Amino acid sequence: MAGTGGVAAISPLAPKTTPSLAPVAGVKLATGAAGIRYKERTDVLLVLLDPGTTVAGVTTRSKCPSAPVEWCRDKLKAGRARALVVNSGNANAFTGKSGREQVNFTAKLAAKAANCKPGEVFLASTGVIGEPLDARKFDGVLDTLAGRAHAHGWLDAAQAIMTTDTFPKLSSASVKLGKARVRINGFAKGAGMIAPDMATMLSFVFTDAPISAKVLRDLLKSEVTDTFNAVTIDGDTSTSDTLLLFATGAAAKEGAPKITRANDPRLKDFRKALHKVLADLSEQIARDGEGARKLVRIHVKGAVSKQSARRIALSIANSPLVKTAVAGEDANWGRVVMAVGKAGEPAERDKLAIWFGKIRVATKGARDPNYSEAKASEYMKGDVIDLTVDLKLGKGEDRVLTCDLTKEYVAINGDYRS
Amino acid sequence: MAGTGGVAAISPLAPKTTPSLAPVAGVKLATGAAGIRYKERTDVLLVLLDPGTTVAGVTTRSKCPSAPVEWCRDKLKAGRARALVVNSGNANAFTGKSGREQVNFTAKLAAKAANCKPGEVFLASTGVIGEPLDARKFDGVLDTLAGRAHAHGWLDAAQAIMTTDTFPKLSSASVKLGKARVRINGFAKGAGMIAPDMATMLSFVFTDAPISAKVLRDLLKSEVTDTFNAVTIDGDTSTSDTLLLFATGAAAKEGAPKITRANDPRLKDFRKALHKVLADLSEQIARDGEGARKLVRIHVKGAVSKQSARRIALSIANSPLVKTAVAGEDANWGRVVMAVGKAGEPAERDKLAIWFGKIRVATKGARDPNYSEAKASEYMKGDVIDLTVDLKLGKGEDRVLTCDLTKEYVAINGDYRS
Repeated sequence: MAGTGGVAAISPLAPKTTPSLAPVAGVKLATGAAGIRYKERTDVLLVLLDPGTTVAGVTTRSKCPSAPVEWCRDKLKAGRARALVVNSGNANAFTGKSGREQVNFTAKLAAKAANCKPGEVFLASTGVIGEPLDARKFDGVLDTLAGRAHAHGWLDAAQAIMTTDTFPKLSSASVKLGKARVRINGFAKGAGMIAPDMATMLSFVFTDAPISAKVLRDLLKSEVTDTFNAVTIDGDTSTSDTLLLFATGAAAKEGAPKITRANDPRLKDFRKALHKVLADLSEQIARDGEGARKLVRIHVKGAVSKQSARRIALSIANSPLVKTAVAGEDANWGRVVMAVGKAGEPAERDKLAIWFGKIRVATKGARDPNYSEAKASEYMKGDVIDLTVDLKLGKGEDRVLTCDLTKEYVAINGDYRS
Repeated sequence: MAGTGGVAAISPLAPKTTPSLAPVAGVKLATGAAGIRYKERTDVLLVLLDPGTTVAGVTTRSKCPSAPVEWCRDKLKAGRARALVVNSGNANAFTGKSGREQVNFTAKLAAKAANCKPGEVFLASTGVIGEPLDARKFDGVLDTLAGRAHAHGWLDAAQAIMTTDTFPKLSSASVKLGKARVRINGFAKGAGMIAPDMATMLSFVFTDAPISAKVLRDLLKSEVTDTFNAVTIDGDTSTSDTLLLFATGAAAKEGAPKITRANDPRLKDFRKALHKVLADLSEQIARDGEGARKLVRIHVKGAVSKQSARRIALSIANSPLVKTAVAGEDANWGRVVMAVGKAGEPAERDKLAIWFGKIRVATKGARDPNYSEAKASEYMKGDVIDLTVDLKLGKGEDRVLTCDLTKEYVAINGDYRS
């Protein structure tokens, strides 16, 4: 899902406060209105990065990726970045030859504005698929933005890339690298078409730590598995999913050591902090699932492997019947059994146990003898639902986040283009 | 989905008329009220089959099948049937040891009523999962039903097994086998939790043709692939799916030849007629998808294989974003691209072409230059939507049926147990 339409109420699952992010040395941001889909709506973000910035990224596994995704995949090989341009309103996906031309043209405009090479420009677009993007609309706009980019534009940046999101998603951490303190700031968007392997999800994370592109790649690869790739809203994987991690290296001036090996022990705390930022951002995405009223945390244990646990967790998380039951505040664990059964993974019905919160509803292939429907129903009224399944077969364990499936999801997505 | 609740309006996609089925020699039916979940509601069906009846079946691939499914799988090995008992209101699924006991007890009661061995009794249950079934409620009821079973009870039978179905599903055919005319009668239920590999779908098909159990198995296996296994409502596979095909052999008296080899050339027309009945029943299931307002026929061609085409078709058919777009009468082919891309099957974005009905909306990786949104929107107002994707990679082709995803689906499934 994408598009800059609608004036939805803020998700009831939104964090109570929006964090205020301190600057990351070497990063300046500016937002503006290029009129991509609507007039005078903020729809473009330019981020300027100091010389020496390294970058790594992960993108959608869709076989039909957007033109900007193909651009990023190519430029990530060199791993050097000086600018990031993100627009909302149009995903520039399935736009054929024109899509590639618009990407090339945008990169040229941004390179001129940022005084760098086009290959050092990274691009992301989110919005309607299949509509040609007119990149001429960026002409002049990017120059202006470059002139007024500043270190404090984080909230504006997070807001500029929103589509059906109901709140801006930001997170940050500060951690020691060697003897210096470094920062990690990130923001994200995405509310529907969210499924593992990235989803219509854009996220950009920035640090001033001096870390090589190769090490950034390793960090992202390992930390994305249990964060962004463990969130699903509707099982629909977008053409545009992009997560980029930039490291300006500016903290080297403060004495931060240059990290060039992924197994460098000095990375330990940084890795944890990065994980925390990614986990926070991806949870915010689940909390802003289209039409979501409840956050659902699925925990599968006792599986034959982590991978098997993940598949079962996703089968539960993507089941329309489980999701509508949660929306209806119905502790319908029979549907959880169904979703376990359809996953195609090893499971023995008569060993299975299921909990809603701390209430064990099923054990040994049948309803728990002590099960109280009244208690379970009371639990289902909460806005965070913990759903645990123990397969009792092995030690494989995994967690996945999702949300419920409400009439509002259907309304948002059924009326979207009209 | 299951349960005998609700008083939904008849699906707008229901066939205009309900067929009236002539008797199948050797088959007698009766329905009654056993008070399984609601008092005085018809919730049990007994079918009596003449001695010599053969049977084959396919059941859910769920790893957590219901107790009756396990019973049927075991009894199908011998392939002999004298009685079928189906109840609605309770699926007897995830009911542990008690579930097996209730199944054994029901089979004993039915064997007594039908004057046969318990191993010749076939059972199916549909309704709520995880609630114990009290089979004592069948005591006396099955005897009474046996006493008044008759050859004309087809419509009553189809109605007795309905849960959230809004109309009874029946189909029949008459075809020559050798020089004799034989009949095929079938009925089915199932409206949600419908996904390939059977769905919460029960279907029972009867013929008077003299066909061995081995040949029936072969017939079912080949004819189910493009009928019942090509229908998906919500991607949720039930614990209870069962399709049974019974052959009484009574037409042998009219001169029908006994068929004991699957490649017997005399079987050709029968196979076609069986396919027609299965296709008709499975299309009726899609037409009665929970909350469905539109039947969606997905045709994928140009894939690298039939299997690859099937996976892509299912990825489209199960995509909430495609289904909600259809519900919103939105010719949102961008979401079709997304669903093709996420299927994980070979696809080249820049070769893809997509049609809504006869309107080509996309070609060569971009919007069709002649695309008219007005025409496409007009087409989307119809109640049958044909969606065609040509991958232009090979000769693999497949078709899948589904329906749209409406707010009513969420209402039906969110309020189900309350």
